[in-house]
Amino acid sequence: MARKRQKRKSKIGLAPGTLLFTGQQKMEKAEFSVLIYNEDQVQEITPKNLEEVIHLIDTSKDTLWINIDGIHDESIIENICSKILVHKLTMEDILSVGQRPKIDEYENYIHIVLKMLMLNKDDEVEDEQLSFILHKNILISFQEKTGDVFEGVRKRILEGKGFIRKRGSDYLLYALVDSVVDHYFLILETLGEKIETLESELLVNPVESVLAKLHHLRRETLDIRRSVYPLREVISKFEKIDESILHPDVRVFIRDLYDHTIQVIETIEVLRESASGLLDLYMNSVSNKMNEIMKVLTIMASIFIPLTFIAGVYGMNFQYMPELEYRYGYFVVWGVMILVFVGMLIYFKQKKWL
Amino acid sequence: MARKRQKRKSKIGLAPGTLLFTGQQKMEKAEFSVLIYNEDQVQEITPKNLEEVIHLIDTSKDTLWINIDGIHDESIIENICSKILVHKLTMEDILSVGQRPKIDEYENYIHIVLKMLMLNKDDEVEDEQLSFILHKNILISFQEKTGDVFEGVRKRILEGKGFIRKRGSDYLLYALVDSVVDHYFLILETLGEKIETLESELLVNPVESVLAKLHHLRRETLDIRRSVYPLREVISKFEKIDESILHPDVRVFIRDLYDHTIQVIETIEVLRESASGLLDLYMNSVSNKMNEIMKVLTIMASIFIPLTFIAGVYGMNFQYMPELEYRYGYFVVWGVMILVFVGMLIYFKQKKWL
Amino acid sequence: MARKRQKRKSKIGLAPGTLLFTGQQKMEKAEFSVLIYNEDQVQEITPKNLEEVIHLIDTSKDTLWINIDGIHDESIIENICSKILVHKLTMEDILSVGQRPKIDEYENYIHIVLKMLMLNKDDEVEDEQLSFILHKNILISFQEKTGDVFEGVRKRILEGKGFIRKRGSDYLLYALVDSVVDHYFLILETLGEKIETLESELLVNPVESVLAKLHHLRRETLDIRRSVYPLREVISKFEKIDESILHPDVRVFIRDLYDHTIQVIETIEVLRESASGLLDLYMNSVSNKMNEIMKVLTIMASIFIPLTFIAGVYGMNFQYMPELEYRYGYFVVWGVMILVFVGMLIYFKQKKWL
Amino acid sequence: MARKRQKRKSKIGLAPGTLLFTGQQKMEKAEFSVLIYNEDQVQEITPKNLEEVIHLIDTSKDTLWINIDGIHDESIIENICSKILVHKLTMEDILSVGQRPKIDEYENYIHIVLKMLMLNKDDEVEDEQLSFILHKNILISFQEKTGDVFEGVRKRILEGKGFIRKRGSDYLLYALVDSVVDHYFLILETLGEKIETLESELLVNPVESVLAKLHHLRRETLDIRRSVYPLREVISKFEKIDESILHPDVRVFIRDLYDHTIQVIETIEVLRESASGLLDLYMNSVSNKMNEIMKVLTIMASIFIPLTFIAGVYGMNFQYMPELEYRYGYFVVWGVMILVFVGMLIYFKQKKWL
Amino acid sequence: MARKRQKRKSKIGLAPGTLLFTGQQKMEKAEFSVLIYNEDQVQEITPKNLEEVIHLIDTSKDTLWINIDGIHDESIIENICSKILVHKLTMEDILSVGQRPKIDEYENYIHIVLKMLMLNKDDEVEDEQLSFILHKNILISFQEKTGDVFEGVRKRILEGKGFIRKRGSDYLLYALVDSVVDHYFLILETLGEKIETLESELLVNPVESVLAKLHHLRRETLDIRRSVYPLREVISKFEKIDESILHPDVRVFIRDLYDHTIQVIETIEVLRESASGLLDLYMNSVSNKMNEIMKVLTIMASIFIPLTFIAGVYGMNFQYMPELEYRYGYFVVWGVMILVFVGMLIYFKQKKWL
Ligand SMILES: [Mg+2]
Ligand SMILES: [Mg+2]
Ligand SMILES: [Mg+2]
Ligand SMILES: [Mg+2]
Ligand SMILES: [Mg+2]
Ligand SMILES: [Mg+2]
Ligand SMILES: [Mg+2]
Ligand SMILES: [Mg+2]
Ligand SMILES: [Mg+2]
Ligand SMILES: [Mg+2]
Ligand SMILES: [Mg+2]
Ligand SMILES: [Mg+2]
Ligand SMILES: [Mg+2]
Ligand SMILES: [Mg+2]
Ligand SMILES: [Mg+2]
Ligand SMILES: [Mg+2]
Ligand SMILES: [Mg+2]
Ligand SMILES: [Mg+2]
Ligand SMILES: [Mg+2]
Ligand SMILES: [Mg+2]
Ligand SMILES: [Mg+2]
Ligand SMILES: [Mg+2]
Ligand SMILES: [Mg+2]
Ligand SMILES: [Mg+2]
Ligand SMILES: [Mg+2]
Ligand SMILES: [Mg+2]
Ligand SMILES: [Mg+2]
Ligand SMILES: [Mg+2]
Ligand SMILES: [Mg+2]
Ligand SMILES: [Mg+2]
Ligand SMILES: [Mg+2]
Repeated sequence: MARKRQKRKSKIGLAPGTLLFTGQQKMEKAEFSVLIYNEDQVQEITPKNLEEVIHLIDTSKDTLWINIDGIHDESIIENICSKILVHKLTMEDILSVGQRPKIDEYENYIHIVLKMLMLNKDDEVEDEQLSFILHKNILISFQEKTGDVFEGVRKRILEGKGFIRKRGSDYLLYALVDSVVDHYFLILETLGEKIETLESELLVNPVESVLAKLHHLRRETLDIRRSVYPLREVISKFEKIDESILHPDVRVFIRDLYDHTIQVIETIEVLRESASGLLDLYMNSVSNKMNEIMKVLTIMASIFIPLTFIAGVYGMNFQYMPELEYRYGYFVVWGVMILVFVGMLIYFKQKKWL
Repeated sequence: MARKRQKRKSKIGLAPGTLLFTGQQKMEKAEFSVLIYNEDQVQEITPKNLEEVIHLIDTSKDTLWINIDGIHDESIIENICSKILVHKLTMEDILSVGQRPKIDEYENYIHIVLKMLMLNKDDEVEDEQLSFILHKNILISFQEKTGDVFEGVRKRILEGKGFIRKRGSDYLLYALVDSVVDHYFLILETLGEKIETLESELLVNPVESVLAKLHHLRRETLDIRRSVYPLREVISKFEKIDESILHPDVRVFIRDLYDHTIQVIETIEVLRESASGLLDLYMNSVSNKMNEIMKVLTIMASIFIPLTFIAGVYGMNFQYMPELEYRYGYFVVWGVMILVFVGMLIYFKQKKWL
Repeated sequence: MARKRQKRKSKIGLAPGTLLFTGQQKMEKAEFSVLIYNEDQVQEITPKNLEEVIHLIDTSKDTLWINIDGIHDESIIENICSKILVHKLTMEDILSVGQRPKIDEYENYIHIVLKMLMLNKDDEVEDEQLSFILHKNILISFQEKTGDVFEGVRKRILEGKGFIRKRGSDYLLYALVDSVVDHYFLILETLGEKIETLESELLVNPVESVLAKLHHLRRETLDIRRSVYPLREVISKFEKIDESILHPDVRVFIRDLYDHTIQVIETIEVLRESASGLLDLYMNSVSNKMNEIMKVLTIMASIFIPLTFIAGVYGMNFQYMPELEYRYGYFVVWGVMILVFVGMLIYFKQKKWL
Repeated sequence: MARKRQKRKSKIGLAPGTLLFTGQQKMEKAEFSVLIYNEDQVQEITPKNLEEVIHLIDTSKDTLWINIDGIHDESIIENICSKILVHKLTMEDILSVGQRPKIDEYENYIHIVLKMLMLNKDDEVEDEQLSFILHKNILISFQEKTGDVFEGVRKRILEGKGFIRKRGSDYLLYALVDSVVDHYFLILETLGEKIETLESELLVNPVESVLAKLHHLRRETLDIRRSVYPLREVISKFEKIDESILHPDVRVFIRDLYDHTIQVIETIEVLRESASGLLDLYMNSVSNKMNEIMKVLTIMASIFIPLTFIAGVYGMNFQYMPELEYRYGYFVVWGVMILVFVGMLIYFKQKKWL
Repeated sequence: MARKRQKRKSKIGLAPGTLLFTGQQKMEKAEFSVLIYNEDQVQEITPKNLEEVIHLIDTSKDTLWINIDGIHDESIIENICSKILVHKLTMEDILSVGQRPKIDEYENYIHIVLKMLMLNKDDEVEDEQLSFILHKNILISFQEKTGDVFEGVRKRILEGKGFIRKRGSDYLLYALVDSVVDHYFLILETLGEKIETLESELLVNPVESVLAKLHHLRRETLDIRRSVYPLREVISKFEKIDESILHPDVRVFIRDLYDHTIQVIETIEVLRESASGLLDLYMNSVSNKMNEIMKVLTIMASIFIPLTFIAGVYGMNFQYMPELEYRYGYFVVWGVMILVFVGMLIYFKQKKWL
């Protein structure tokens, strides 16, 4: 998950509520997709322009889900949001992609911001900011670009599976947030597998490149953590939203969602601990390697330096060195040197260095 | 305790409340066992099929404990649970073996999820998810497979020992949870013994294999901690369940259970501290070994390198080297070398390196 | 951000509420600037002396923003503050530049102290204490010296952009605090870039000078953290100020501001983690370099010390050393030495030290 | 303080409230001692059997303190406790010596469990579980064995010193707990002195044995901490006990006791910090010793290896080596070698290695 | 700040409320000083004996400040305190110099305990226990010995500066506590300067003695922290004292005092961080020095050991060694050795070890 540099600087000095997209434009043109449904029927529409969408807001009495991919065009966001009397600050938040996950209650709507996590082609984690506006029977979702984790929800609506068609826009909002959270598990499993792979590598050959990978994984875990942690509070507040907006039957589902959020957070902590454990293992293996290197050096030097000294003594050129003239002097010296050698081996053996 | 990879992925996209077993099937066929009792009489039944169980639920007025080993068959769970109007989300939780310990209150029943810890044949900790549904006079317990820690409770019911036969299904639920917690102490004692064994090994011979074992034990402790920590809150909420479900006489027992839970958690913290202390000890012993190795090297090199130099000087082939012609030159050099040698020994002795 | 030594000592023994400037005088003479506006008109004034300012306070009915650059002259602060019945302790706080960010409610006014962070010419972070007094339609801001982050606000007032002209002094106070917080993001981005630069440097060449820079950056992060952390509570209290002072329409803007404050704090934590991560990386790279150094030493010594010993043996001057007389003795020794050399290379290759 | 292995295993499967002593029997036979007193008179009794004790409970109207040394005989505990309608779970707690300090309120009595810490003959800390039952005018104390910290209280009762005779069983309970807490200070002072002794040893000669002692002291501190920490909550709850049990005049004494408990806990934290500081000191001294060792090696090797090389050059046997024939060649070489030697010394001096 | 060994042991076994001075007597005889004042007049008295003090308590209607230097004489404390019906436990606290800072409310008085910090002649921090009793118009302060930080307050009373003469004993108590807290800043600035000095020393020459100083400073910081931390709660409770004792006009001053306390605590945390940062710096500099030492060794050994080997080869005495007879053999060998030497230099240059 690349640490995105946001265009914060460009906002400095502007009035609060000034609409300015702070992300990178990821698609050429915003695209709309709409689902209108009640218990009996469902209709899928792909509006071609903003006017069609506005018309649907004006006329629809059934549950209306409007999804918008692409939020770089401030005027589109402003037009749709104004239609249902959304506050300027909310619009600003939708356009600020560096938002922290949160839930805001206004008089006539609630606003939820989330981070949707997905894996890209290189198996790296990518995040995308998701905003939801829930206003009466209408749910509007804003995405940075095409592609999301809502296929299951769409299918259930279209095929009429589960409770979803029997319930209103509040349950739909729950179902979408639930999809996002379910997907976190997938991300975390992938991350967990990467850490396990790294552990195996590390046990086999603790080279320095493993450390760089580990550093990268720890950072990725921290980034995900930051995206997910605030969710705990968001879901907890979501569960307490007024009954006029949230049907009591839906509340129990949100309690279930809260459980999942806790599980996600716990899993992240497990991953962090695992990564820390690996770092410790690495550090220890480096220490152990150093010990081994030093042992080899010490053994070689301790054995051969004294032997070399002995040889050096009898390489001296003094005129009177009685040993040199002994018949078996040379062999005696060899004997002494072998004795020293063997003695040293025994000494190191005793110290368990060999 | 192997970190089980759960089949989370298979659930992505499914409707909340979709019944899908997420664990590994551990027995061929679910098995039922039933105890019906009041103060005066007790009856043990092994129903052969689901219909028999359903029939018992319909007819029994006494305290009825239905235990189910094997939850891989979703239809069985669904049939029994529907009979007593259990919510779809609860059924889903029973089937999701990666659940975090929790207690959920519904209008007509309470639902508790726990992790039962047991030692397998290799003395490794294994966990099994336990779910309880308490509905009026009926208690249903769901296990992943045959084998549990409830033999004491069964015996007390059958033999009419203790208070158990005088009280209802609420006390039974308490007694079963209490058995699970009592068993945690056994697990923790085993773990504590393993850590003590490791400490002895480490003090005798701090080899690298000890580190791997220590790493393993720390992880096991962390896994148990995760299974047990949420229990504190579960039992605390259990104690506050409404009087209509929980008889005041039972409440004081749950307070006692709460004490035990705190003790379990405290013991886990002690084990964690011990394991951390061992890691410190290991690190220090590695440092000390390195120091010793370096000392040997330094002493050997510092003594023999100067001596070798002296010998080298008198091995030079200059035509005019007056010392070489001295009658006792050779012996004087030997004297100097012995002086250097002894001087070095004294120096290292003073530094306490010898 | 230099750790300013404050003139705390000079205050010891003085009565609480004694007016004494504790900072360094940064401009020769205090300067005033005033904006008076309502929805329809706006007037910009640069009062030449205190009397003019006092006169404006007495007469103005519209929203009146008085900005004072330079707080070293205690009498000016006292005169203005007394005019609107500000407590002696508040005046003292305005003059104490080592104040912690806070909000104080008094019967007739509220007082906010903040740290404004700006980059100086050397790209170092500098802080300046900002105090605000909000009293009915009047807002007074106190700065240590000329130069601030309010240009955007002034422009919006003068050009009548945004809501600012439609609202009163409460919204003005919000807008100014919001400007300060917006500027924090700029500071943090700059710091983030410095840390990233350092990371690249460190990966290329982990020299000691990088460590000093890292030490400096960690301290800077800590200093900023101390300036920003208390803001969370300040803004949270600000949001709860009584409706008689804070119009309900403004409250929602302060909630938005609170979000930003949380984001700022979170970003600081990210920077701290990054800096810690870098320190770990550095430590590891030092360890790895040490390992490499030791490997080179060990390999060189292990190979050549035994070879030197062999050469030493045949440099001895014994009269009877049969090998010396062999025709091919010299070449056989060379062979043995090459064998030892190659054997050593293979040994180190196997250990993966080469 | 030896980590006592409790007989937890033996309790698994038993009904809650089953009376089973889990400690080690420390005396042959339980012993009773009784004090009956009011403001005017006091009577000391040593009952020979249980019946006498029961009789006293039945008849005494004055404050009655029954102390029992030895709790291994479950039937004695059961008989006395039943007499005053103590709950089975409380009896079980009295018999479970691994209890965590706590206070339990029942309808007709309160129950306090504490750890009494004393020094044994080897100056090691030993703990003993203490239970108190306060029921109307009766206070019963249960100890594992003879020997306690209550001599001062007994003396004050017998001699009529202090307020103790003027007050009832509630003040007596306070006075006993106060004695236990006062004794903690003694234990902590002893521990503090041990740590200071260790610090002196460590500064003089940081050998490995000091580390083992330090490891031992840290563990002892942790054990004490675990015994004392829960006391904070116990005393805090004690202070809030209903007025029907606790006379308002006694409450202020318990507030004083609470202060002492906080002081005890703070002192433990100081000891922990000191022990951690010592570990850091030790680690640093190990690093410094390593540095010194390496310096000696580096200096010796760096000086003599080049010199040896020079000598080696002129030990070569080439037929044509002009220097060898120079009249003063030998002395020139000596000069060069001395120059190298001195140069090296200056180099190391500049580096401050010498 | 020397860790005072208190005479705790002597108190074991005594009744609560037993008056026993636990500190070291620091002056021969207790000394009294008294200030009586109202808005119009002030009177300074130095009572010669206890009776005079008692008489003043009996007769004075104005604000009466009695200061007592020297608390080793229990009877004096008891006599004065009994006069205004102070509880025995409060008297005991006044005499126990190891008290933790606290505030206690009694029906007829409030009691505050603080630590006054001052620098002694050797610039070391010394603490002294201060107790205040506020009873109606009377404030009594108890000090361990002569010398305090109240000169400013005395001067303001005598000269009638500030509000102090217009207000009662409650404001006086505030003013004295405020003086103590103001003085903490002085202490912390001195400590901060010591740490900065140490940092400079450490950057210039990281010798072991610096480590000892750092160890000392960390301990001093921890001691101060322990004296100051509880103040936060004390002042917070002080602010909430009932209006019958604390005039509303004084409350706002205490809020200001609370701010200062928070600032003091924050500054202590900064000092702790700085000290930790220095320890890290020291550790790193030790590692770096080790690296440098090893580099020198490795370079010297790697260069000269192979050269010595080459020289050794041609020092062998084989009868048939063709190279020895070559006319330019000696010079060729010199060439080879220079090549090896330069090659090594280039190799180390590339590795950036040179
Ligand atoms: Mg916003
Ligand atoms: Mg982000
Ligand atoms: Mg998308
Ligand atoms: Mg879900
Ligand atoms: Mg889990
Ligand atoms: Mg480490
Ligand atoms: Mg669920
Ligand atoms: Mg999981
Ligand atoms: Mg698990
Ligand atoms: Mg089972
Ligand atoms: Mg139990
Ligand atoms: Mg324990
Ligand atoms: Mg500052
Ligand atoms: Mg102030
Ligand atoms: Mg400050
Ligand atoms: Mg400015
Ligand atoms: Mg903003
Ligand atoms: Mg961010
Ligand atoms: Mg380290
Ligand atoms: Mg119990
Ligand atoms: Mg235990
Ligand atoms: Mg214990
Ligand atoms: Mg005893
Ligand atoms: Mg006491
Ligand atoms: Mg203390
Ligand atoms: Mg360390
Ligand atoms: Mg006290
Ligand atoms: Mg102290
Ligand atoms: Mg004094
Ligand atoms: Mg002050
Ligand atoms: Mg500060």
